Amino acid sequence: MVWSVIGFLAGCFSAATYVPQVYKTWKTKSAKSVSIQMFIIAAITALSWITYGIMIGRPPIYVSNTVGFVLSVAQIALKVKYDRVACEK
Amino acid sequence: MVWSVIGFLAGCFSAATYVPQVYKTWKTKSAKSVSIQMFIIAAITALSWITYGIMIGRPPIYVSNTVGFVLSVAQIALKVKYDRVACEK
Repeated sequence: MVWSVIGFLAGCFSAATYVPQVYKTWKTKSAKSVSIQMFIIAAITALSWITYGIMIGRPPIYVSNTVGFVLSVAQIALKVKYDRVACEK
Repeated sequence: MVWSVIGFLAGCFSAATYVPQVYKTWKTKSAKSVSIQMFIIAAITALSWITYGIMIGRPPIYVSNTVGFVLSVAQIALKVKYDRVACEK
């Protein structure tokens, strides 16, 4: 069915969303202009969609948001790490 | 039903996700360490979820992603604007 293909694609894009930001932060070792609040909300959002996706039985929603949750937490950790390094300089 | 409350909450969090980043960029007039690729994928992701949400008839999915799409495009515009200003300095 068309909607399941669209759901699969949306899930793939969703899972990929935070990859460029995590990669850029890791590569440049800087996240000064990145909002930590955004990634805290992103982590909470992902947890909510995981719950919702499981409840309505839609794998594209909970699988992609599991990846999103892991990447959001990784971005928060990198931001905290590099902002601290920048302060100590 | 519980799942519709969770869906509503997830939608609210989703819609709010990019607000802190757009606000921070607008306030500091800088987005140097923000990944533009991330927001391009975010815009494509939002469009896919809007399509999927409409197809499976779940308003929390398409309403929140419409807000996400608008904010992603706003963030791309701000990033392009302030990166250009930074280059000209």
